[in-house]
Amino acid sequence: MNQIVEPTGAARCQGYQLSKQRNAPDPELTQVGPGTPCGEYLRRYWHPVALAEDVGEVPYKLRILGEDVILFRERGGRYGLVHQRCPHRLASLEYGTCEDRGIRCCYHGWLFDVDGTLLETPGQPEEVGSKLRESVQLGAYPVREYKGLIFAYMGPPEKIPPFPIYDAFDIPGMTLMPYKAPFHCNWLQVLDAILDPIHTSFLHSRISRVQFTEALGELGVLGFAERGMQIVGTNTRRVNDNVWIRVNELILPNFTQAGAAFATDGTKVRYFGRSSFTRWVVPIDDENSWAIAWACFGERGDPPQWMTREGCELIEQGELFDRTYEEKQRHPGDAEATEGMGRITVHADEHLAPSDRGIAVMRQRMRKAVRDLVAGKEPPQPTAPAGQTIRSLGGDTVIHAPARKGGDDEAFLKEIGKKVLDIQMAGDARSDAERDDWVIAELKAYEKQLAVAQ
Amino acid sequence: MNQIVEPTGAARCQGYQLSKQRNAPDPELTQVGPGTPCGEYLRRYWHPVALAEDVGEVPYKLRILGEDVILFRERGGRYGLVHQRCPHRLASLEYGTCEDRGIRCCYHGWLFDVDGTLLETPGQPEEVGSKLRESVQLGAYPVREYKGLIFAYMGPPEKIPPFPIYDAFDIPGMTLMPYKAPFHCNWLQVLDAILDPIHTSFLHSRISRVQFTEALGELGVLGFAERGMQIVGTNTRRVNDNVWIRVNELILPNFTQAGAAFATDGTKVRYFGRSSFTRWVVPIDDENSWAIAWACFGERGDPPQWMTREGCELIEQGELFDRTYEEKQRHPGDAEATEGMGRITVHADEHLAPSDRGIAVMRQRMRKAVRDLVAGKEPPQPTAPAGQTIRSLGGDTVIHAPARKGGDDEAFLKEIGKKVLDIQMAGDARSDAERDDWVIAELKAYEKQLAVAQ
Amino acid sequence: MNQIVEPTGAARCQGYQLSKQRNAPDPELTQVGPGTPCGEYLRRYWHPVALAEDVGEVPYKLRILGEDVILFRERGGRYGLVHQRCPHRLASLEYGTCEDRGIRCCYHGWLFDVDGTLLETPGQPEEVGSKLRESVQLGAYPVREYKGLIFAYMGPPEKIPPFPIYDAFDIPGMTLMPYKAPFHCNWLQVLDAILDPIHTSFLHSRISRVQFTEALGELGVLGFAERGMQIVGTNTRRVNDNVWIRVNELILPNFTQAGAAFATDGTKVRYFGRSSFTRWVVPIDDENSWAIAWACFGERGDPPQWMTREGCELIEQGELFDRTYEEKQRHPGDAEATEGMGRITVHADEHLAPSDRGIAVMRQRMRKAVRDLVAGKEPPQPTAPAGQTIRSLGGDTVIHAPARKGGDDEAFLKEIGKKVLDIQMAGDARSDAERDDWVIAELKAYEKQLAVAQ
Repeated sequence: MNQIVEPTGAARCQGYQLSKQRNAPDPELTQVGPGTPCGEYLRRYWHPVALAEDVGEVPYKLRILGEDVILFRERGGRYGLVHQRCPHRLASLEYGTCEDRGIRCCYHGWLFDVDGTLLETPGQPEEVGSKLRESVQLGAYPVREYKGLIFAYMGPPEKIPPFPIYDAFDIPGMTLMPYKAPFHCNWLQVLDAILDPIHTSFLHSRISRVQFTEALGELGVLGFAERGMQIVGTNTRRVNDNVWIRVNELILPNFTQAGAAFATDGTKVRYFGRSSFTRWVVPIDDENSWAIAWACFGERGDPPQWMTREGCELIEQGELFDRTYEEKQRHPGDAEATEGMGRITVHADEHLAPSDRGIAVMRQRMRKAVRDLVAGKEPPQPTAPAGQTIRSLGGDTVIHAPARKGGDDEAFLKEIGKKVLDIQMAGDARSDAERDDWVIAELKAYEKQLAVAQ
Repeated sequence: MNQIVEPTGAARCQGYQLSKQRNAPDPELTQVGPGTPCGEYLRRYWHPVALAEDVGEVPYKLRILGEDVILFRERGGRYGLVHQRCPHRLASLEYGTCEDRGIRCCYHGWLFDVDGTLLETPGQPEEVGSKLRESVQLGAYPVREYKGLIFAYMGPPEKIPPFPIYDAFDIPGMTLMPYKAPFHCNWLQVLDAILDPIHTSFLHSRISRVQFTEALGELGVLGFAERGMQIVGTNTRRVNDNVWIRVNELILPNFTQAGAAFATDGTKVRYFGRSSFTRWVVPIDDENSWAIAWACFGERGDPPQWMTREGCELIEQGELFDRTYEEKQRHPGDAEATEGMGRITVHADEHLAPSDRGIAVMRQRMRKAVRDLVAGKEPPQPTAPAGQTIRSLGGDTVIHAPARKGGDDEAFLKEIGKKVLDIQMAGDARSDAERDDWVIAELKAYEKQLAVAQ
Repeated sequence: MNQIVEPTGAARCQGYQLSKQRNAPDPELTQVGPGTPCGEYLRRYWHPVALAEDVGEVPYKLRILGEDVILFRERGGRYGLVHQRCPHRLASLEYGTCEDRGIRCCYHGWLFDVDGTLLETPGQPEEVGSKLRESVQLGAYPVREYKGLIFAYMGPPEKIPPFPIYDAFDIPGMTLMPYKAPFHCNWLQVLDAILDPIHTSFLHSRISRVQFTEALGELGVLGFAERGMQIVGTNTRRVNDNVWIRVNELILPNFTQAGAAFATDGTKVRYFGRSSFTRWVVPIDDENSWAIAWACFGERGDPPQWMTREGCELIEQGELFDRTYEEKQRHPGDAEATEGMGRITVHADEHLAPSDRGIAVMRQRMRKAVRDLVAGKEPPQPTAPAGQTIRSLGGDTVIHAPARKGGDDEAFLKEIGKKVLDIQMAGDARSDAERDDWVIAELKAYEKQLAVAQ
């Protein structure tokens, strides 16, 4: 303990110089409050804002996109999402009562419908009350419950898009379990991870501990594709004589799907397996976010044994959320990786690498959409073939395809990854009823064709 | 859970538009720190700042009007209210010792009298010490104990008004129990409630639960009067063959009294019953306040069974202060109503209604006084008939006065409310010794006269 | 409780006027973040930043001089002090793993050497990876472990001074116990106390309670000296027929030593006893600081019975750190005195007295050094005789020297104090091997000479 040695490489240490080169955050993509460019952009879309189980007999207070709002359910059954405060004297409606119709303020009993219409003003002279009921409105947002999630649209009423129905909302045999996970940081650093195909190998496998399957620790061959609002990253790995293609996707601005968490390690064939979650990253405010999602269980999703609250936490980020600091240090998950960047990360301080291509593209696309909106051009909505659901791709395919003797296996994997993704995308031309069978049949045909070519 | 229905009235929802119309707070009436217009205005009056029982063997640190101060009591007995920090090296006097005379700083032993005079500077050469003792002064404020409350005057010494003695300080047979209640919000939204005559019917009766007497759930006929610095709101209710007149009052800037909390439900006659509390709303800083008061027990106040800490909390706001969030949501009291507005409410976002007349008048009066002071005109002090106490009115009168067959009972109640208030105000012409008997006799005579007119 | 008395001396109370005369803090000496003048000044010196025992298997996150950094130890053994965030995607290295060589980021496995060199970028194409490894560097600082403390140099690499070795680091028979103590306030108000010779008599003896020895309650005769970067305050007290000279010292900017805490009360002779601690006051940020030190135990230090965590807390500040508010009020220690000034004290509000001479000089010297540095002149480093340790003085000497009958004992004490300090300083001319024996012999000779002169 007593030795005096020259400090290692003092001359090479650049802490002092580098501490002077700190940059500022990226407000264009990280500020989400009312009136900010990115906040306005996000307000052009439907977002999940809570779980149905959050809403009981009393109103539920929450913050979304930097705005404090109250979610409630009438005793009858309709949901309402309204501004926090009664326009009369600004008492918080979290203390109001849920009525057969609407919500009643605790302070003076004013009653508001789910659309914010002022229905009753007790204790005021009728001639004044009727004028108040015409002129005063509580801020409200369209809201709907869907399979245990509560979705809202917080943008301009005249721009309201149809509620988007994705294929993933109704896959035969799949059970959807709603969950939400808090992140104490800006939404974008949570979102980034979906298009970061190699953090799985490090954070979730090699470094922290094996959080999903051991095979994820293998770095695969990366692929990348864009289609409309969809950005897709693939990771193709060899597992003995099998080839495992994992597809992660983002549909702008914040819809995410990935491969399975626990369902596959590449050792068994799997054709067009689907995502472990159907998930949105939703800003609470600039410094906090929710991942709100269904975890997907069934033959084409994750094994039903994980269909618990803890299971959903593991699927979301590889580790339980509520842990000691020491546990977090020894076994970090996505929360540690993303929250550790600080409340709002600083893009200009990063050094993006080739594996970050998806992230870079996503930010460019989003920045363009935000700037377009500022310039008056509305952002696009996800589209679907006429009369069909919006198509998504996240999931895994594993085919039998031994390495070719003397061949360049990396090139071979790249080719297979591209072809499998092409087949899955080609499924879009089919109707909801036919598509999955068609894709699976094509994948099997391709597998057979490879065997023949061997 | 699976149905897809069109979101209710999406087109009527105005959350998006209304979230862009947020206004700013009202600094003229809500900023209370040193040097602010409203802070200066409030510093022209004596205010209670603590309970005598807050002050024990060690100094008591508190914040009042945005300033950190130390309240202490000499071992002899005098109270002192001084600036937080010793002018020598700025050690906090909360760690000082209470001496036979004055308070001694823990760091270097400097001793200060209750008026801030520097008495001792040990360890300094005498010639320097004597100069220090002449030139250095600890900030101090005049302070006095009165029936268990500690009052202070924090304004300019040359403007100090006489300590105001109200009639309510010494009503025969009345026991005063000191209490204080914290509100985590601006003082004005706590104060507002005293002139809000119908929140009692909603918050305290119909919506949360019956916190006082059930009869308060009835909306009565409102009356209103101003007299000097006094603003009075009356609520006159019919209870079977009785008429119950409840008088709430504010004496500017922050003296409040109300009707009884538990003593009457209007079923028994009561002549010139007095307030459930004699109470001041005192700013801690812009975002926190105290209600500091005596709860008043006795035949003309509330029943002595409530003379406990819990009883005082119920009298103050209808519910206990320290409760779970769920209890607060299910049974809100004044703390939830006022704190729920946010730390500093935004007057410009309100929509005041006819029942808010008293609040509107109070703010106008206060705003005028604040502006007058900025313009150099000192605000008025409460006045009393020569040699008498300052007269207050808060309380209840219940007289037997059955509805007139075929008559307009609302008009009748209005007439009775006005007459009862007139009688009580007319009592001002009498001396302290005669007044109450005179008012009670007049009320009884009026009751008899009504019976005859029947 | 009911009496009404005129508030004492209301007219003399100047709280109102004085609350308008508040000044602002002293940014030149209290702001310590990267790029601030004082921060730059402090970054010219080695500072202890942690205890070796803080660093285990996982990285240790800390803040020093307003900068968040990570201290870690390779499994091999070298320490590294690096910027908090990986330059790739800014994941926090507190979740990284300590490797045989360097630290590895949890998110994508980038590996950094202790000097910040990027060693591995797994998952990136080799041609890109090699460019990244050349161009990207993690901020790092030279760091060394020394007897259980971790020292770092956070300034410009080309200005790195030699690691300063003080005499106190290796006194024969002395055991050094590392400790650190948190202060929730600016560093300077913690540092000030070392040159405040009379707070010991008040805070640590007369007012709080006797925290060290009772004799410290006696105010002594003060002396003062400057030598190079060293500022020394002496306190000379008579204890019966003995004279006790206590030497406190600061070596700029933040090295402090004092007399013994428990070893002497002046009743037994002691020749050139040494400091109770060898201690640095190190800013965490503008509002928090560490005292990081060795407590010194042995015949010339404090008695080994205090060699515990609690003992170190008592030596540091007279009381344990983790106490209830009531205990702190009744028995304040240095933490209460310094933290009670507020997070950043306001020098312009102080009224310094003659006993604060050392504090005033220290601030002048420091202010000059800060301004010199802004003007381009590097601050001086502590110097040592060629080939020897840097000499320090903190400690106690007690000699037998009865008061002279009929003489001016205060003048006598002053003369002795000065002479003893002169002898100790004269020891600088001797080598490390000879110095202590020489000083002790001279002190004894002086004691004998005084006895003869009696």
